[in-house]
Amino acid sequence: MKFIVIGGDAAGMSAASRAKRNLPELEVTVLEQGEDVSYSACGMPYNLADPFREMDDLVVRRAEVFREKQGIDLRLRHRVDAIDRIGSSVKGTDNKGRPFSLYYDRLLIATGASPLVPQIPGTDLPGVFVLKGLHHGRQIKDYLRKVHAHKAVIIGMGYIALEMCEAFRALGIEVAMVKPRPVLLPRMHKRLSEIIKTVLEKESVELFAGVEPRSIEKEGDLVRLSCSGQEFKADLVLVAAGIEPNSGLALDAGLELGPSNSIAVDRSLRTSDEKIFAAGDCSDAYHVVTGRKVWIPLALRANRAGWAVADNVTGGEASLDGVAGTAVFKVFELEVATTGLNMEEAKSAGFDPVEVVIESRSRAHAHAGSSNILVYMAADKPSGRLLGVQMVGREGVAHRINSAAVALHQHMTVEAFSQCDLAYAPPFSPVWDPLLTAANQLLKAL
Amino acid sequence: MKFIVIGGDAAGMSAASRAKRNLPELEVTVLEQGEDVSYSACGMPYNLADPFREMDDLVVRRAEVFREKQGIDLRLRHRVDAIDRIGSSVKGTDNKGRPFSLYYDRLLIATGASPLVPQIPGTDLPGVFVLKGLHHGRQIKDYLRKVHAHKAVIIGMGYIALEMCEAFRALGIEVAMVKPRPVLLPRMHKRLSEIIKTVLEKESVELFAGVEPRSIEKEGDLVRLSCSGQEFKADLVLVAAGIEPNSGLALDAGLELGPSNSIAVDRSLRTSDEKIFAAGDCSDAYHVVTGRKVWIPLALRANRAGWAVADNVTGGEASLDGVAGTAVFKVFELEVATTGLNMEEAKSAGFDPVEVVIESRSRAHAHAGSSNILVYMAADKPSGRLLGVQMVGREGVAHRINSAAVALHQHMTVEAFSQCDLAYAPPFSPVWDPLLTAANQLLKAL
Repeated sequence: MKFIVIGGDAAGMSAASRAKRNLPELEVTVLEQGEDVSYSACGMPYNLADPFREMDDLVVRRAEVFREKQGIDLRLRHRVDAIDRIGSSVKGTDNKGRPFSLYYDRLLIATGASPLVPQIPGTDLPGVFVLKGLHHGRQIKDYLRKVHAHKAVIIGMGYIALEMCEAFRALGIEVAMVKPRPVLLPRMHKRLSEIIKTVLEKESVELFAGVEPRSIEKEGDLVRLSCSGQEFKADLVLVAAGIEPNSGLALDAGLELGPSNSIAVDRSLRTSDEKIFAAGDCSDAYHVVTGRKVWIPLALRANRAGWAVADNVTGGEASLDGVAGTAVFKVFELEVATTGLNMEEAKSAGFDPVEVVIESRSRAHAHAGSSNILVYMAADKPSGRLLGVQMVGREGVAHRINSAAVALHQHMTVEAFSQCDLAYAPPFSPVWDPLLTAANQLLKAL
Repeated sequence: MKFIVIGGDAAGMSAASRAKRNLPELEVTVLEQGEDVSYSACGMPYNLADPFREMDDLVVRRAEVFREKQGIDLRLRHRVDAIDRIGSSVKGTDNKGRPFSLYYDRLLIATGASPLVPQIPGTDLPGVFVLKGLHHGRQIKDYLRKVHAHKAVIIGMGYIALEMCEAFRALGIEVAMVKPRPVLLPRMHKRLSEIIKTVLEKESVELFAGVEPRSIEKEGDLVRLSCSGQEFKADLVLVAAGIEPNSGLALDAGLELGPSNSIAVDRSLRTSDEKIFAAGDCSDAYHVVTGRKVWIPLALRANRAGWAVADNVTGGEASLDGVAGTAVFKVFELEVATTGLNMEEAKSAGFDPVEVVIESRSRAHAHAGSSNILVYMAADKPSGRLLGVQMVGREGVAHRINSAAVALHQHMTVEAFSQCDLAYAPPFSPVWDPLLTAANQLLKAL
């Protein structure tokens, strides 16, 4: 039996490896259009922050290991151009520019996502970068080694933008951040995003929200970004304005698409063609709170979906619950975490949400080193169900969010969550964990 | 209506405060045999580690605040000697040595627990201490300020013993630890407790497990602890060999007792007398995994139970799920956390448990500053239910345990837990959280 995987990153290589482990006689071919497989993309901002590290430190497993140790037919610089569902084959162009056609019994589309680049002149100029694949990381690393950069402009203010902002500041580079929409982190509660804004300003980051990029031009060694009412000169421009799913192949093949043009899959990761699976950043998922389809591209889901595809391709019966949208990032001294829905999402999913924002401490009364934690928590008024949590603080945020994520998977009420026996010791928490304090407050509003 | 509370610590003052808030016309009297109310007992080891802090920093709310701001009739140095259930009154001795008798409509017994002191000669000598109440903390603080201590012997190796061990080492005091049972932390998986042992040895702590204390004598300015086959000379001996519930009043009044002679209460915190409640370290609880009664005295439960009593006394209908036995402590560089059952407890509760111990990293692949995390996870083979988790590591343990605690409250299977959307970012976690890695491994054994 032939299992073909398009795309050799998290979802694709997880699927290929596990399928081969599950069923060694399976013929597994991975077609990767780039040079890199199996690397920690999320580690790139941290790698870039450290001039003494090589970008290739982030490679988790090298291509030869997949080929020689695992018996996977891994083909780099093989681009798939079309899926022929009737003939059950993929057609593409190999690393020597020659056309190829390969038959599949089962196919996985794991084509990932691509950076959204604003439709303005000059985004292809030298000194203008995106950051998604390892080759992007290498380009930025090389550039920073060649150019003694003093100033960077980042288009976008999402997770990657903020992580890269921190990386640039760690390298002593001044940073201005620009985005067309007027709000820093629109999914976050304003009281929480204000904390992040304050920290960014303390770190001398210039924020320009509500500013529309218009064009990029070279000016000597610098790049000039012209915006609505603003102009920036910098050594480099990083475009980190979000990503979009690489679903073109699937669309052309007539597969059903889901939210944000991601590839629609069921809980078994099957597309609308039962021989074709999709996993990773290119595909959608069920949201465990709303039961609706969402496109929330995150690394854990990609790995988990890859495994599930492998199990289903090799005779198993894997089915995934879905995602809670749990995410965490670090920005300077802050840990920022979120799971579930914000108020707007809750309303549009048909809930009647109420919210609280509480301030608590990261450690016990009178324990040295304590700092503030802000918790947003929302629940559905009629049912009392927990709907979402967001947290910001200097410590004790990144892992605390997980207990709320588990509660969301279980459709717990705030009342039930408020009864949970969470850990307490003075160096780590107040007696009432900040999440319990939020739950206790929220109960009063229900 | 008269609500009388015996004991002015966590459970007692939580109940008194909330009852008065719920129903301002309620007459609330708290009878506390000591001098202190409402302090962070768990903070004492950290306070003792810092010679520049006063023990009274740990007072959360002073007696006058309860009296003047909250209208609670708080009586210090009032010892209750008997409960007259037929006459609905408590009888005792006041702060001037005079007998008193007070009628109650509702009574809360929140008498806490007392240190277990081995029945050996010399435990009452100067230089021999226990640590439970704030007055104990003051005694040790005063002694350490008077005596330039070089060496301490701790009888016991539980949480308090280990926290005090760290405190003594922070003060430059040599520490030997002694206990009769041969195992350091018998509830913990051996592979995890070995990590703790290694760290203690690295910190030059001498461990003598399986050594029975026989007597304590003065020898000049020192105290000499004689044990089976060992003798220790030290500036002080700390007895931290566990605690027992203060249930004598309840027993004398004919109330039903639970495990370890704690006071038996139902989910509403009612004792076998419906007018009498018990809460805090003196009372038992349902274990959410087994459904059976346990005595696991911890601060969060005490506070939560105090609140529930207040609600029930003032016309509400509070009912508590119970405890998962979630606990965390810090010992030198390690975070140690546990929730649910170990293998022995699981077996004796009628489960057919299987376990894994896995080693994972605290941060992502190639992320600087990563360290090892060891996770023990157990499940019931027939049902697949998660039964217990223990973790040890230098970071990322204390709050991670909470997601497992929530899962235990929900009677989740390992399969369901393994699907949870937990947070990932390189500074905080591998893509697969250590708990997910443990769950994935454990699934193979189910």
